[in-house]
Amino acid sequence: MCEANAFVKSGEQEELFMEQVDIIEPFQDGLRLVDIFGKQKLIRARIKDMNLLNHRIILEEFQDK
Amino acid sequence: MCEANAFVKSGEQEELFMEQVDIIEPFQDGLRLVDIFGKQKLIRARIKDMNLLNHRIILEEFQDK
Repeated sequence: MCEANAFVKSGEQEELFMEQVDIIEPFQDGLRLVDIFGKQKLIRARIKDMNLLNHRIILEEFQDK
Repeated sequence: MCEANAFVKSGEQEELFMEQVDIIEPFQDGLRLVDIFGKQKLIRARIKDMNLLNHRIILEEFQDK
């Protein structure tokens, strides 16, 4: 399977946000992630980078003003 | 293999930009894509959405002002 795990970067830490992500798409002022089971999570973040062979997607949360 | 193909959306069309993409990361005012062979391409675009099980990443080019 070719899903990936999504991590949220905060400072030097990377925290697992969602496993086995299939779909990432824009939603309102952030992103909607859907895993391979159809479960969805929303986050106010952007995609920072990704490494598909390592199954890693790094998200960066927006800083509140 | 879990690489994906990157398409650039222009209007209703989606044009293949790069095959077998492994890494996508920010680069200057756009993105740097690296394929599984280590070849790289730069594009002034953002990631619009992606569907990993379908191996598709859709990029959206920035409009020049």
